[in-house]
This record gives sequence, structure tokens and C-alpha cells, in this order.
Amino acid sequence: MDRVEAPKVVIFSQGDEVITGALVDTNAAFLADQCRTLGFDVIRHITVADDLAELVQVLKEIDAMADLCLCTGGLGPTQDDLTTEAFAKAFDLELELDAEALEMIREFFATLNVPMADVNAKQAMLPKNSTRIDNRWGTAPGFTSLGRTCRFYFMPGVPYEMKQMIDSFLLDDLQREFAVEAPRLITFRSMGMGESDIQQAVNDLSIADDIRVSFRAGMPENELKLLFPKHYSEENIRPYLDEVNSALRGSVFAVDGLDQSVSNLPDCVAQLMSEKHQTLSLIETISQGDIARQCQADWLLQSLVYPQVSALTIDFDAEQEEISETLVEAVAEKNHSRHKASLSLVQMHKKINDTTVAVYTAVADNQRSISNSKEVWGRAVRQQTVASALAFNLLRKFLQDV
Amino acid sequence: MDRVEAPKVVIFSQGDEVITGALVDTNAAFLADQCRTLGFDVIRHITVADDLAELVQVLKEIDAMADLCLCTGGLGPTQDDLTTEAFAKAFDLELELDAEALEMIREFFATLNVPMADVNAKQAMLPKNSTRIDNRWGTAPGFTSLGRTCRFYFMPGVPYEMKQMIDSFLLDDLQREFAVEAPRLITFRSMGMGESDIQQAVNDLSIADDIRVSFRAGMPENELKLLFPKHYSEENIRPYLDEVNSALRGSVFAVDGLDQSVSNLPDCVAQLMSEKHQTLSLIETISQGDIARQCQADWLLQSLVYPQVSALTIDFDAEQEEISETLVEAVAEKNHSRHKASLSLVQMHKKINDTTVAVYTAVADNQRSISNSKEVWGRAVRQQTVASALAFNLLRKFLQDV
Repeated sequence: MDRVEAPKVVIFSQGDEVITGALVDTNAAFLADQCRTLGFDVIRHITVADDLAELVQVLKEIDAMADLCLCTGGLGPTQDDLTTEAFAKAFDLELELDAEALEMIREFFATLNVPMADVNAKQAMLPKNSTRIDNRWGTAPGFTSLGRTCRFYFMPGVPYEMKQMIDSFLLDDLQREFAVEAPRLITFRSMGMGESDIQQAVNDLSIADDIRVSFRAGMPENELKLLFPKHYSEENIRPYLDEVNSALRGSVFAVDGLDQSVSNLPDCVAQLMSEKHQTLSLIETISQGDIARQCQADWLLQSLVYPQVSALTIDFDAEQEEISETLVEAVAEKNHSRHKASLSLVQMHKKINDTTVAVYTAVADNQRSISNSKEVWGRAVRQQTVASALAFNLLRKFLQDV
Repeated sequence: MDRVEAPKVVIFSQGDEVITGALVDTNAAFLADQCRTLGFDVIRHITVADDLAELVQVLKEIDAMADLCLCTGGLGPTQDDLTTEAFAKAFDLELELDAEALEMIREFFATLNVPMADVNAKQAMLPKNSTRIDNRWGTAPGFTSLGRTCRFYFMPGVPYEMKQMIDSFLLDDLQREFAVEAPRLITFRSMGMGESDIQQAVNDLSIADDIRVSFRAGMPENELKLLFPKHYSEENIRPYLDEVNSALRGSVFAVDGLDQSVSNLPDCVAQLMSEKHQTLSLIETISQGDIARQCQADWLLQSLVYPQVSALTIDFDAEQEEISETLVEAVAEKNHSRHKASLSLVQMHKKINDTTVAVYTAVADNQRSISNSKEVWGRAVRQQTVASALAFNLLRKFLQDV
């Protein structure tokens, strides 16, 4: 159990677009995920505006709290791009012209057949003793340098350029510079059990202290994550799978990270549809196309979307009948007989009150059919989303025959 | 021009999902945008993990640097939800059971017909002298309280619940607590003109220095925002509208903030459909239900989703014909004659290569039809999204008869 503590990382984003909310910062999540996968401990994300004094101050704060800082943005050619200057100022470094960097910027413009503007020369000024990170995908070179004790990596804010630098330089360099041990992440994807019920169930398990447990309450999928330190072997991990699976009482539809790689419920269904060579004909009401949208075009042959159930029941000569599981199964069977797809999925709904509908779903092939019903509350968009998930979950059960 | 400096805001997000990058933090951008709209100065975004000591430390740091802190996350029922405890610890406050909050949580579960788990009672513990922010959309009540000098607002991390709290409580409360001068935000919503073309067009305009210009490149909608200081009257603002509209060469489908309130293209179409008492019958291929999903159930009567175009052309006796604008208009007219809806929208597509499709869209009523075609590149999800937007934009043009 004697382990070195993981190096601490701060993810640092800058720029007016991010601070003002004009842009959602997707870089931070991407970089944090990369760091965790490598075995770093991400302790903070910080975003500030393009303000020199503020930047200098924050760089010093980060230096005091972290071992590693990944920074994006502020390397452009314009007057509000201040990162390099701020870093030099924060740690008393001189800026020097990097002739190779300047040549690369010139070449980049040449390939675009555009003359380099004078302002771009500024991008070739790097702090003394820093290591340049080449940018073959844009104009701004990155660089890495030591503050007082923290190692900083500066990259452009353009996600594509930043990601290319990660692959071409950082992944190797980080493993050279830091002694990190990649942990193993196991994600239990579940549906139909609430977050607090999952918490309650997990409270009753005995999970070793060095395994980090976290939740992600989705709507309607929930994830329970166990992060195992590297010293856990597959044999040490497996007993936890059974224990958690049984605690979550059949709500787990996939365990990601060991034998399977499944990103969500539609992905789980897509894998099953392909493995079993099935095709689907679909009828949706409340979800209004949201089920079809998440299917794959190679096995979804058709979807009929009836926002109003009455139009559906008329088309299926069932306008006299009360909506029920029996009815939705009958319609699923009729739809199966009308269409060449190997499976038929039908969903219908009945309004309970202004915020609640009862959703009926059935799946049929030429031998059997199954159905269920569930009340769904909330706004229209939530009802769509939950109804879709109910459809995918029933289809999954039909395909797995459970 | 003599104005009091705007109050300083820190946007504070917390939770393992955000810090580890499992979740992109969209709340921060939303809240920053709200603050700027109200006239606050957003100085920093900070994200930390669910760690008590770290939370206490950060709350104190924020207190020292800002006048206002908007915080999301960490109010849930589970053991890793530590915000309330951290706040109480940071500023030496006691936690008290808020009986009304507990009652609301109980009622929330009662309406779901679910028993409240014991762990949820924790969510009703609030710091002494804080003001509760009711949550009628989930279990976690929020609260607002003063640190040493900074006012904190704590809200759930679930975006929908957080947004409801903003509308129902914060917008009023912030204006009561702070002397802010709301600037006036005018948003030009456009479609069909790229971000750099918009930038170039705007560079050629003469916009006064005190008007803040920003972009938000959406996919495929783009927004150009002009933020006018409060001293601008409507008469001062109007000339800019005409100038920007003509610079953006007909790509603007709505100007939000003066005469209209339009949130996006589907919203623009929904308003027109209702005003003009129209109903729609829809056929989609590449978008696979993504158009239907964004329509309103009161005017969308039916959508037929054919992921493979060949199935559609067979159903419309057109399997011999080359896909073209002529064909898609003919199918739109035929679909109109088959269905009672007042309008018919049909979209078809043709694969160009592995990453590009040509998308053909037509709208018809019993008197006229219009169509267009456009190449769309990218992954499947991007193609779906862009194709939907093309459909909504053509429908908008048909309804506005432009």
C-alpha cells in the first residue's frame, strides 16, 4: 500500500471567450481526462481573462500548488494574447527570438499562400531555456518550461492544435518528466436505479480505501465508477464486479473497462444489433424521433414518428382501444408483419397530467414480444430523453433475452 | 462615462465529474454569460474536486478576491457532496436542519411515488442564517449566504435545476444585492455564413469602442453579439441593427433582444408555424429523426424516418430517378397530397464520399414548393445536426416567404 502520491495538476485555460461564457471550455475536460488516464491527480481548473497582472498572479499561485500545469490559450498574435509575456514576468525570464519557430510560422503561411503578418513574429518569442513544442497545424508554437517548482506546458486554445501537440509531444514528455502509474477505471453503466439508491447500495459494500468511488448521475443513465490503483491485478478487480453488479440489482447494462468497451445505452444496443444481425422497424410518439436519431443507419430500416398517439392508433385500426401494454404489443406485432425488419419496436404514451405521461413500450419479432410501462415526469425534452432510454433498454433486454 | 467599477465574480464549479474531465462544464459558460449580461465583471472560473480541505481553502480564496461567487455542484445526497459542509467550515457557521427544505424534498419524492432515501435528509441541512433557494425541479435546495465579504450562491450541478433557480430567484436577488448596470445585449442569430466571414464583415463596420462585440460559433448557427452600455437608448442602437444585418448579407434569421425574443432556429420556426396556423408532415433521411425531435407536437403531425434513401424512393415510386432538387420537390408534393398537414417538408441525401453527403430539402404546400441542396461534411452526428438546421432554415424561408 506504500505508494508515491500522484503528481498534482492544474488545468489552466485563458481567454476572454472562455471567461465571458461566449465559448464552452471543452479543452479543460479533455486535458483533465488525459491526465487522469496517465495517473496524475487533477486538483484544480482555473480560467482567467486576458489581463497581464492577473495572469502573472495566477501563474505564481499555480506554481505554489501544483507539480504540473497544462495551459491553453493566449499564444496568438494579437494584443490580447499575453501568456508568454506573463510567464516570463512571473518567473523573471527573458524572452528570446526562436529562429526555428519563426521559420515554421513563415512556412505555415507559405503553404496557405498567405503573406505572414508582422504581428505573427511575436509568436516566435519564447522564454529563455524553455523547450519549444512544434505546431505543424497552426501558427502558435507551444513551449514547456519550469516555473519555480512546477512544470508548465503552454498550448494553443484551438482544440485541434492542442490535441495534436498532446499526441506528438506531451504524452511522451510527461511520462519522461513524471513518475506516474496509470490507474484502471471500471465504469458500471446502469439504468432504472436512482442515484441515491445506488449510493445506498454502495454504502453497504466493503470497498478498499484506496479504490476511488465516484458517481455520475445522468438522465436517465447513471454511472458508478471505481478507479483502481495500478497495483490491482485483474484477479483483484473481478470480485468487485460481481459484488457491485448484484448490489445494483440488475440495473447495470454494461461494465466498461475490463471485458467490454461500451459508451452508453444506444452504443450497447448497437453492438447487440450488429452481433445478432438484426434490423429494426420503429414507431415512436413521445420521443418524437429521438430514438431513431440514436440508432445506426445500417440496422434501423424505418421509423414512423407520430407526435400524437391518436394518429398512430387510427393507422393501426386501434382507435377504440385503451392504451395499454397489451395494445402496444399488438401494434408491435402488426408493425412487424407489415415491415421486413426482423424486429419491431413500438412506443406509445398516455397523458397522466400536465407534467407526467405513462409510456408503453413493446418489442416483437416473429416469435415473441415483450413490453413494459412506466410513468415519466418533467418537461417535454426530459420526457423525450427518458422515453428513448426506456425504448433502448427494453430492446437491449429483448436482444440479451433477459 | 463615470461609472462605478462592476462587481467582481468568480464562477465556481465542483465535483469529480468536472475535475476529472468526465463531464464538460457547460454551467460555467452559462453562468458567466448571465453575469456579463447583468453587468458583472467575471474575473475567474475555478473548479475543484470533492475534497473537503481543498473546498474550504478555495472558498476562502474566492471570498478574498470577489464580491460574488456563483457555485454549482456538490449539493447532492451522496458522501462526495461536500459543498455545504465546506462552506460552513470555511466561515465558522453551524449547519441547521431546514424543516421546510426537508418537507419539499419529501414532497418531491412523493410526487414521483418513490420513498425518500435516508441519505437525502442531509440535503436539508443548511448553514445558519443562510437563505434557502427552493428547488421545485429536483431534490437539492440551494442557498445564498455571505462569506466574510463575498456573497455566495450555491446551486445544484444539474443544468436544468440550476437554470430554473437563476430564473426563479437569482436574477431578482442579484439585482437587489448589487448595484449593477445591465448592458443591453443584442444577438444576431445567423445561419449559412462562416465565423471568419462574419469577423471580416464586422471588421469593416464602424462600431463604437464602448460596444463589446463577441462571436459564438455554433454548429451550424453562429451568433454575433453586441453588448451596449446602459446609456445607449433604443434610438442609438437601431442604426447598428441595419448596418450589421446588411453586412451579414441575409444570413441573419433573427435579432434577439429588441423587438424579438428568439432562442434558436427551431424556436424561430415554431413561432412562425403557430402564428400562421400551419401543420407539418415530414420525411427525413440523413437527420434520422433529429428534425422531428425539435418540432412541437401541436403542429408536427407525422414524420417518416428513412435512414436509407432507397427505402423512401421505393415508397414514392421514384426508385429509378436520380436524387435532385426536382425529385425532392416532387416527393414533397406527393407527400403533401397523401397527408392532411398543410405543409410538407422532405429531405433526402446522396453520399459524395466517406465524409461528405449532398443534402436535398424541399417544402411544399398546395400552391408552391421551394427547394435547395448543400454538401455537408463531417461525422454522422455533425451531418445529422447540419441537415436538421438546413431543413428548419428552408421551412423558415417558406413561412416568411423570403
